[in-house]
Amino acid sequence: MTPRQLRALFIGFGNVGQKVAEILFLERERFPNLRDLDLSVVGIVTKTHGALVNNNGVDVVKALREIRELGRFSWTNFELVSISGLDAARQLEYDVLVELSTLSINERGEPALLHIHEALQRKRHVVTANKGPLAFAYSDLKSLADENGCRLLYESTVMDGTPLFSLAQSGLRGCTITGLKGILNSTTNFVLSRMEQGERLEDAVKTAQKEGFAEADPGHDLEGWDAAAKIAVLANTMMGATITPFDVDRQGITHLQVEDVQKVSKAGKHLKLICTAKREGAAVRARVALEEIPHGDPFAPVGESGSILSIETDLMAPIIITETDPTLSDTAYGVINDLLSLRDECRVSGIR
Amino acid sequence: MTPRQLRALFIGFGNVGQKVAEILFLERERFPNLRDLDLSVVGIVTKTHGALVNNNGVDVVKALREIRELGRFSWTNFELVSISGLDAARQLEYDVLVELSTLSINERGEPALLHIHEALQRKRHVVTANKGPLAFAYSDLKSLADENGCRLLYESTVMDGTPLFSLAQSGLRGCTITGLKGILNSTTNFVLSRMEQGERLEDAVKTAQKEGFAEADPGHDLEGWDAAAKIAVLANTMMGATITPFDVDRQGITHLQVEDVQKVSKAGKHLKLICTAKREGAAVRARVALEEIPHGDPFAPVGESGSILSIETDLMAPIIITETDPTLSDTAYGVINDLLSLRDECRVSGIR
Repeated sequence: MTPRQLRALFIGFGNVGQKVAEILFLERERFPNLRDLDLSVVGIVTKTHGALVNNNGVDVVKALREIRELGRFSWTNFELVSISGLDAARQLEYDVLVELSTLSINERGEPALLHIHEALQRKRHVVTANKGPLAFAYSDLKSLADENGCRLLYESTVMDGTPLFSLAQSGLRGCTITGLKGILNSTTNFVLSRMEQGERLEDAVKTAQKEGFAEADPGHDLEGWDAAAKIAVLANTMMGATITPFDVDRQGITHLQVEDVQKVSKAGKHLKLICTAKREGAAVRARVALEEIPHGDPFAPVGESGSILSIETDLMAPIIITETDPTLSDTAYGVINDLLSLRDECRVSGIR
Repeated sequence: MTPRQLRALFIGFGNVGQKVAEILFLERERFPNLRDLDLSVVGIVTKTHGALVNNNGVDVVKALREIRELGRFSWTNFELVSISGLDAARQLEYDVLVELSTLSINERGEPALLHIHEALQRKRHVVTANKGPLAFAYSDLKSLADENGCRLLYESTVMDGTPLFSLAQSGLRGCTITGLKGILNSTTNFVLSRMEQGERLEDAVKTAQKEGFAEADPGHDLEGWDAAAKIAVLANTMMGATITPFDVDRQGITHLQVEDVQKVSKAGKHLKLICTAKREGAAVRARVALEEIPHGDPFAPVGESGSILSIETDLMAPIIITETDPTLSDTAYGVINDLLSLRDECRVSGIR
């Protein structure tokens, strides 16, 4: 079967969405393995910057330019329409929903969850970089996708685009995953690394914000919610759990003083915010907690914005995957790899 | 499509082959994700312990018992035949050749290379744990497999069963791999770790032999040939190179004294045998050399029999995968994962 055009609907067009668009529509010629991805973006729907729709393919280059120059789509853009994410997911003609809106813990993954549900019910594939829907309702969404013969892909929800889920799905087919342990939140890991060197928490947070990976409101990261959402996603997708971030035994780092961190450091260890998931009988128990990691441990060199995940299985020694110095490209790449998976699978199996 | 029986021909039935058989035919019930792999072994051909053939499936449990009790298949086993690996590959009816004979550098990957070539020409899939054929002729074998619509899988050739190749194939679809760096030989890494603690090379080798991962003739490992074969496999399969182990700029560790290793250690670094592959214009240049790795580097904590690979790409920050304390199960698992991949792909695409 020849490669087929994939028609995509983007919901959300923030940093990640713009980077995906930049790589695929401005820089693609630089990347030989992207050349034959035939993608048509039939809609880009944002919460506050407007929405563009064109059944023959939105002018993505123009969309990027407008959002960067004006902070929103231009009133003169003939593709501009007034449509909500939900209505777009319901009404437009697309093969894959690319859900890139931001995580909301308080809203329990909504409205992204609703968008994804709608797409799957219409038998459309889904690629999402939003952890929320998987952290709150993976099992339901996966059942719906399977019933409707479509794919739900989410490589960039945890550790940016590091291919964790690809690895688990294609490389651990015969294994049962029995435990997970990771450093999964960049902001807290960066802040802890800096506090080790004597910087105050507030100052380290400011640096992280300046370098672009901490949110304007860092509370979500510092209180462990982002980490809790990530370990919930991993537990739900890799271990068959049905937990939410609210079920994770969670600790943050806001209470720490420089002295606390340096005391551990002087004892030859590193203070790290560690996410774990363990099978306990039929249940899976997840936790986010500060732990003292000794020198010589594979987790010890993971400083600054790096992250790491150790996967324990019933058949192999633990497999550890590490991400060093990720940039926005890495997260965008996860979305692109999902689109390529979809393209390749459609080619092989002839599924929609 | 319902799962179909895979008929396998095993060539080689040493430690890895026996462990694969043990997991699949004696212990399978313990591993939920292996239960539905329907495998029939139509032949087991060894170089010096005899060969068993049965079109309806060899009695693998009996074969295992005989080889462990007698060191060879019993003269009274009615499945016993006199057949070479090559003739078996040529004549028997199987879906997949499982090539588990041992690496021969001097013979440039033969006779395994011939077995695999024969199977692919007959449009049979191949799963191999033998590095030789890929280190010497990957590009030819891959072309032949593609022409004949069959699969060539080799997950356990490097870093035991750690899913490196699965990761690269399914998780790095859009990336071009630009560089590789790894600690890939367990014996030398173990010996270097022990020498750091003051043990002499000869004694450390004996310990490694006692623990079962160093060969009776350790020269192959200590002179860097195993590492050279592994980086050749990685460069050929992941970077499109066409090199052999003889093209690798190779250094071993036999010349080292305890004092050399400890001097590096006292300077706050670790002496490691590092494999690298780098793109240089159209060519790929591979090297095995001793390097001083500083504390804090992700390679530093990889001691004893552990291994690690860092993958550099054009689109992402380096991805690092680490294997800790592998056992024979890990290598066997790589073979099993390949068999499961084949089963799953046949199911989706209906290929042979």
